[in-house]
Amino acid sequence: MTNNHTIVALATPQGVGAIGVIRLSGANAIEITNKCFRGKNLENQKSHTIHYGHIIDAGLPDKPDEKIIDEVMVSIFRSPKSFTTEDVVEISCHGSPFIAEQILRLLINHGARAAKPGEFTLRAFMNGRIDLSQAEAVADLIASNSASSLDLALKQMRGGFSNDLKILRTELVNFASLIELELDFGEEDVEFADRNKLIELIDTIQAKLKPLIESFKLGNVIKNGVNTVIAGKPNAGKSTLMNALLNEERAIVSEIPGTTRDTIEEVLNINGIQFRFIDTAGIRITEDVIEKLGVEKTMEKLKQSSIYIYLFDVNSTTPQELVREIHELELLGFKGIVAGNKIDKANWKSTAPFYKVLEESKEKLPHLIFISSNTHYNLTLLKENLFRLATSDLQPDATVVTNTRHYEALIKANHALNEVKNGINNQNTGELIALDIKRALEYLGEISGEVTNEEILGTIFSKFCIGK
Amino acid sequence: MTNNHTIVALATPQGVGAIGVIRLSGANAIEITNKCFRGKNLENQKSHTIHYGHIIDAGLPDKPDEKIIDEVMVSIFRSPKSFTTEDVVEISCHGSPFIAEQILRLLINHGARAAKPGEFTLRAFMNGRIDLSQAEAVADLIASNSASSLDLALKQMRGGFSNDLKILRTELVNFASLIELELDFGEEDVEFADRNKLIELIDTIQAKLKPLIESFKLGNVIKNGVNTVIAGKPNAGKSTLMNALLNEERAIVSEIPGTTRDTIEEVLNINGIQFRFIDTAGIRITEDVIEKLGVEKTMEKLKQSSIYIYLFDVNSTTPQELVREIHELELLGFKGIVAGNKIDKANWKSTAPFYKVLEESKEKLPHLIFISSNTHYNLTLLKENLFRLATSDLQPDATVVTNTRHYEALIKANHALNEVKNGINNQNTGELIALDIKRALEYLGEISGEVTNEEILGTIFSKFCIGK
Repeated sequence: MTNNHTIVALATPQGVGAIGVIRLSGANAIEITNKCFRGKNLENQKSHTIHYGHIIDAGLPDKPDEKIIDEVMVSIFRSPKSFTTEDVVEISCHGSPFIAEQILRLLINHGARAAKPGEFTLRAFMNGRIDLSQAEAVADLIASNSASSLDLALKQMRGGFSNDLKILRTELVNFASLIELELDFGEEDVEFADRNKLIELIDTIQAKLKPLIESFKLGNVIKNGVNTVIAGKPNAGKSTLMNALLNEERAIVSEIPGTTRDTIEEVLNINGIQFRFIDTAGIRITEDVIEKLGVEKTMEKLKQSSIYIYLFDVNSTTPQELVREIHELELLGFKGIVAGNKIDKANWKSTAPFYKVLEESKEKLPHLIFISSNTHYNLTLLKENLFRLATSDLQPDATVVTNTRHYEALIKANHALNEVKNGINNQNTGELIALDIKRALEYLGEISGEVTNEEILGTIFSKFCIGK
Repeated sequence: MTNNHTIVALATPQGVGAIGVIRLSGANAIEITNKCFRGKNLENQKSHTIHYGHIIDAGLPDKPDEKIIDEVMVSIFRSPKSFTTEDVVEISCHGSPFIAEQILRLLINHGARAAKPGEFTLRAFMNGRIDLSQAEAVADLIASNSASSLDLALKQMRGGFSNDLKILRTELVNFASLIELELDFGEEDVEFADRNKLIELIDTIQAKLKPLIESFKLGNVIKNGVNTVIAGKPNAGKSTLMNALLNEERAIVSEIPGTTRDTIEEVLNINGIQFRFIDTAGIRITEDVIEKLGVEKTMEKLKQSSIYIYLFDVNSTTPQELVREIHELELLGFKGIVAGNKIDKANWKSTAPFYKVLEESKEKLPHLIFISSNTHYNLTLLKENLFRLATSDLQPDATVVTNTRHYEALIKANHALNEVKNGINNQNTGELIALDIKRALEYLGEISGEVTNEEILGTIFSKFCIGK
């Protein structure tokens, strides 16, 4: 955790592009850059200014050949008005990996050190500019691939989540100090901390932790996308549906040149939520029995997914067959939509028996809609249904936990608070109660980084990309 | 070729990184960015300054929801002090393809147009900031992958090549105008342009064109790398040699984290020149005769390459066999090195007969060295020999042509100048001579873009990446 060294890394993605940006941070960032720069004297320049010049390899004293490496623009950010709060320099060079490597090599030769993954953000945290959950939000922001995940990351980066926790923590700290005070009085058997009020506070805190803990399932969905299984018999038209859904989105995306994504193969973005489609092998019917293997495979995929679409061909399925398939696949235990496909080739009158059978069924059967992958009929309705199912638990403006580390810390804090309550009910000594309160405080503090250790930091920042 | 629109594109490579840079250029660049920016009023900011704020989607008048897209730094470059000479804005956002796409979409909604490949550089050319060969050097610079190709691109970008041509062109223009003057006098049969002096000038010009034309072969080598065939019998140790050469380089490269190149599989950088190794199937010996197929294959590869290394095992090859192999493969017609491998397992005395046989041979045989891929003995010498062979035609500080378009224009200009000389010798009329001079001038002018048309520009800039 040494902050003495000036660190350097390529901040833009690897590869060929119009420009690449190399970032330095540390007390000597400007001085080191200046040694490799021909143009104005960078050390005399104000913060937040940009300077044209050349990166030059001035050679060694015995080999004083000067060689131009590239024509660049250098941006200066002076401490503390920078991302890390240290002096920061950004060198905007031509976007060739070879040039970037040459410049990195040169800066390292002049005293900079190659940055470790996430080291710039780590410094922003160590120097107190952001807390730990905000630092983590930076990584989430970079990894965000939908409007919803971006929103959550931005919210977390602006401290929404940490602020909620800070308030809870402060109240708990007050109680903890009262109990510590009791301990100081030793045998005198005083109770500064009203046990009933403490239980009340813990109930309040737990009432606030509960929705946070519960929000994780949804947060995870928003951050990582919704696994969506498309199941159905081979002739139901599963791939046609998938292509129809994906092609609509691709058409929009491809309007903006240069922004095609790496692979959107089987991912569909609906109202800012990513749906990751998992194709299942068609369920084959042998001797009028749904093939066992197909059922098993589909059920396995269903268990891994959040939502299913069960597709059937309106023209070759009877309502009774449909109900039996739904039961055999045990679809009732899952969130999903049953969609009658190829409605363009059917008579609308034939849909009535399906509704009737489902209504007559004792159990609450899944939502039924009729669509056509060929004519795109009702695909918008299908998408709306998918979105509604995925976000049915989402409260507007609620804080949503997306980070597994935070989730685990919340669970542990909640558990420790239960222990505090148990301790009070069992008339435990103040020492033991104080210990459990301390543990709860520690878990809550881990989230924002008020309580931390090198191991936790190492784990968090090693997942960052270099240059961030 | 409309310069009215403000254009926008992602300037950094596609993919995930710490930051991404979106670039706008055009009269409304600052105004459009300002509409999507929450922070200072960008329209009041000076050139070459950087501003912190948020990119916001302010929504439509009927849907005024404000939504934050990202936390960004915005750099302002005011006309004419920018790459394009127009107002330029660079938005440094978090390096997520999704975020970049959102911001691009927003800027396009507010009036920017998605830039075509190379359109920023095209504007720099159209607005007279750089000439055409300099614009092309920008693309070369981005594509450069060795110190030599980088040097050439930088030299060309600074105008070295165009300046040489400009002088030649000016002298020729003077003569052309004298001949045009003769034409004005029509039947009077005057000769303002001294025919002998014109031939003298053309000889001077051609003397300058010749090295430029000849430099292309070398320029091409520097820009695209040297194709190098490693040939030899299966037991000669070809792959071991290749691995030994490549591993040495990899060890250096991997010292700088985050800079590993895409694939250096079979490319070796020696003193700033790239050698691309082409492995040949080992030449098998059947009944003491080199297998015909192996010979044919090897010779085919040799024809496509610039340099060969012919490898033999010192311990299992007699000097007579070696000489015969060299002759059978017709190696004498090519540039290359004959390397006796596995010298670490041989007695040095056994090398003498090889030298002797080669010396006694009537023809000038290739350079012979002894190496060991296992102990890395003499690999440095081998690399020095490769470098010397590849660059033997390189004059220090000479202008080197690297661009096929330039090369073709030079060839055509030279041909037109020959026609001018023929015309003079055949006592052609001034009209015909003037026509050929004009053609030569056009070809020379095409290189720097003084003479140009939309088709040429389209071809050149379509090869650029978007955002440059």
